[in-house]
Amino acid sequence: MKKSFLLMLTVFAALMLCAEPPKYVFLFIGDGMSTPQRMIADEFSRAKGEGQLVMNTLPVHATTRSCSASSLVTDSAAAATAIACGTKTRNGKLGVDPEDKRLESVAEVAKKCGKKVGIVTSVTINHATPGGFYAHQTSRTLGYEIGLDLIASDFDYFAGGGLSKADDKKSKNYRGNIYELAAKSGYTVTSTKAEFEKLAPGCGKVFARGCEGALPYEIDADGTIPTLAEFTKKGIELLDNPNGFFMMVEGGSIDWCGHGNEAAGNLTEVLGLDRAVRLAMEFAKRHEGETLIIVTGDHETGGMTMGFAGTGYNLYMDRLAQQTCTTGEFVRRLRAARKAKPDLGYEDVKPMLEKAYGFKFAGEGPMVLTDAEKKEIEKAFATGKDGKTRVRAAQLGKTARIIMSDKAGIGWTSGAHTALPVLTTSWGKGAQEFSGFLDNTDISNKLKALLRK
Amino acid sequence: MKKSFLLMLTVFAALMLCAEPPKYVFLFIGDGMSTPQRMIADEFSRAKGEGQLVMNTLPVHATTRSCSASSLVTDSAAAATAIACGTKTRNGKLGVDPEDKRLESVAEVAKKCGKKVGIVTSVTINHATPGGFYAHQTSRTLGYEIGLDLIASDFDYFAGGGLSKADDKKSKNYRGNIYELAAKSGYTVTSTKAEFEKLAPGCGKVFARGCEGALPYEIDADGTIPTLAEFTKKGIELLDNPNGFFMMVEGGSIDWCGHGNEAAGNLTEVLGLDRAVRLAMEFAKRHEGETLIIVTGDHETGGMTMGFAGTGYNLYMDRLAQQTCTTGEFVRRLRAARKAKPDLGYEDVKPMLEKAYGFKFAGEGPMVLTDAEKKEIEKAFATGKDGKTRVRAAQLGKTARIIMSDKAGIGWTSGAHTALPVLTTSWGKGAQEFSGFLDNTDISNKLKALLRK
Repeated sequence: MKKSFLLMLTVFAALMLCAEPPKYVFLFIGDGMSTPQRMIADEFSRAKGEGQLVMNTLPVHATTRSCSASSLVTDSAAAATAIACGTKTRNGKLGVDPEDKRLESVAEVAKKCGKKVGIVTSVTINHATPGGFYAHQTSRTLGYEIGLDLIASDFDYFAGGGLSKADDKKSKNYRGNIYELAAKSGYTVTSTKAEFEKLAPGCGKVFARGCEGALPYEIDADGTIPTLAEFTKKGIELLDNPNGFFMMVEGGSIDWCGHGNEAAGNLTEVLGLDRAVRLAMEFAKRHEGETLIIVTGDHETGGMTMGFAGTGYNLYMDRLAQQTCTTGEFVRRLRAARKAKPDLGYEDVKPMLEKAYGFKFAGEGPMVLTDAEKKEIEKAFATGKDGKTRVRAAQLGKTARIIMSDKAGIGWTSGAHTALPVLTTSWGKGAQEFSGFLDNTDISNKLKALLRK
Repeated sequence: MKKSFLLMLTVFAALMLCAEPPKYVFLFIGDGMSTPQRMIADEFSRAKGEGQLVMNTLPVHATTRSCSASSLVTDSAAAATAIACGTKTRNGKLGVDPEDKRLESVAEVAKKCGKKVGIVTSVTINHATPGGFYAHQTSRTLGYEIGLDLIASDFDYFAGGGLSKADDKKSKNYRGNIYELAAKSGYTVTSTKAEFEKLAPGCGKVFARGCEGALPYEIDADGTIPTLAEFTKKGIELLDNPNGFFMMVEGGSIDWCGHGNEAAGNLTEVLGLDRAVRLAMEFAKRHEGETLIIVTGDHETGGMTMGFAGTGYNLYMDRLAQQTCTTGEFVRRLRAARKAKPDLGYEDVKPMLEKAYGFKFAGEGPMVLTDAEKKEIEKAFATGKDGKTRVRAAQLGKTARIIMSDKAGIGWTSGAHTALPVLTTSWGKGAQEFSGFLDNTDISNKLKALLRK
């Protein structure tokens, strides 16, 4: 057969196949998640014998430029605006362009197209990334106003962390507690896991708050609060309907562990997001030919790298498994112990460091602290005027997380965001549109075009 | 029409279209080039108004795991073996498996399939990356033996840097100077640009040596030695024939600038490789439907990031354009000046620093050195027993390149390789095979399968 004929035939058949919009669209966003974060979690998972991350195996990959209108290094608000609304804006602005003109998000387009819409996050629900999909404010700091926009969106499912500034009486737009206003607007607002678990299809609009503020970090969680994956699972149940749905799920705390240069916390947050992606894939396989899954990030955080001068040509991912809580939690424990025993000393914190990070103060093996590392730890103790030595909790936490990264071979160059492109992977109906080199605005614009078909 | 029928039609037509192997295959490898290196060069090019890198615009992107059989962090020999031969081996081994069993490279397969084969690099032609395509040695250090393998390969075009250990009389396999042996085996060996430029189709097997050792860095080059792009262009001319060709082109010095944590050198090497990719694209567009272009890296080097604590949410790519030579060249100039004036002091080196890095010691603007930076520079001067102060050339070079990276906002975490996956991009016939998440061995194995069709 002639090549040109075959080419035409391919294009025709493919076009016919793609003529309808995807019925179900999942958009996963890791805040502060670029290739290093995804691959460190991937190597950690492999080292544990648990195989690759689902999000990395999606067949279409794209390199995605994340710069904002004001800098090569974006903040989460400008990035969310780009990914949600398809327009670059200045750092700090949310759902509006650089001249504060209101934009339209892909979630709003999906709603107009008759789909149900869900917005899920592990951090506060009016944080920049989720906000980009329903809010239009000149500044991401306007938490109360973003909360009002949440209610006005009329979206079907909000879930994850609670609101910041839910009752901000200083706001010139104050008209009552956001939770109460949401309930008045017809939202079922849940606050406990038990209430959440009772939610079932047909319950109407939902605002499922896991807790005050952000959800606990995955590594610190005790099971009393639903996880990001559980919120995603419920979202699938509640949103499924003959017109389909659009659901955005954010792993928001990856970024915070990036700012804090904490490797174990970072990768366990990525793994938490991946569990949500896995649920979407399971759903998608039951709805093949109807579902599109996209996993992206808004920017990289921390200048995280998979190599450190001190470990040369080696990485030791297994060592990160020794860490059992975030440094934030470790510092809280230190402070609580210091409250009970004001002269909390070196010998007292040894078992605490062993428990939290797996460090060993004697014996053999890679987790044994070197003399230089022990010296760094000693620096976190200060002797007061009363002659008593006390631990400086934050300093010890900082030292511990640096030692942990060093031992694993993870490097960091910043406490801020970086301009490294993010990796976008996708699967399913329309996924081929999200291939190659993308601008972050392409994600929204291509999705809108797909939905409007 | 029924979806299943359309799907079958698409697959059938696509399969018929892909039934033949690509006639022309280009494989570009940036040594030490992962996403950060590609994107820093990209942003630099954009900042200069010269648009995106061609290599980044290729439509199919893949995330490529680079680990070796012995470590998550590969060396160039194991990576070259994986990319060329499709098998993981231990760091240091070249073209053999972990048990030293000889492997077959994709270049050797291409030769067997009747194609002409070209191997081009900016570093020594028997370095690890080019060597992986024709040599089979238990250690990458066996430069002489790799040279013998080069001759035995009978490949059609070797070009770039010269050989290391070309006349290694200590080798137990010594049987004469490699260049002379190559000439005896029927290779036209060229050593000057004039000889090189005379090479024309029909001249038979070619070994075009740009110089002794590696080619000059792009940023230091004076035009007397052909560039990587010029060697590539000649390769296209000489290799074109009715059976097609396979050409591997390595940007080898990207890695060295990574080891040296030198941003301007690094990105200008990537731009040099991109000029070679551009030539391949121009050729490919004249041979549409027959050509496959793949651009990958063997690993990341330096833990290079696009953000630095000191510059916060900003990158200043334009500042890197102020640097006019490598730090190696700057140190050579310092040493030459010190030879002429042994007590070369701070005031003497000021204009040299200004010329090489664009630093300013007074006035206004981002290139003006801060007091802290000036203090670092002062530390590079030592006072000898004779009371005279002299510059420590290597130390000053190191200080200057650190200041340069800091001013631009480029961070580094290592002087070694890292395990960050590399970005593989591709275009043309069979490119879809190189999509998604790949192992570096997949590149060879998929290419071999395509060639054997």
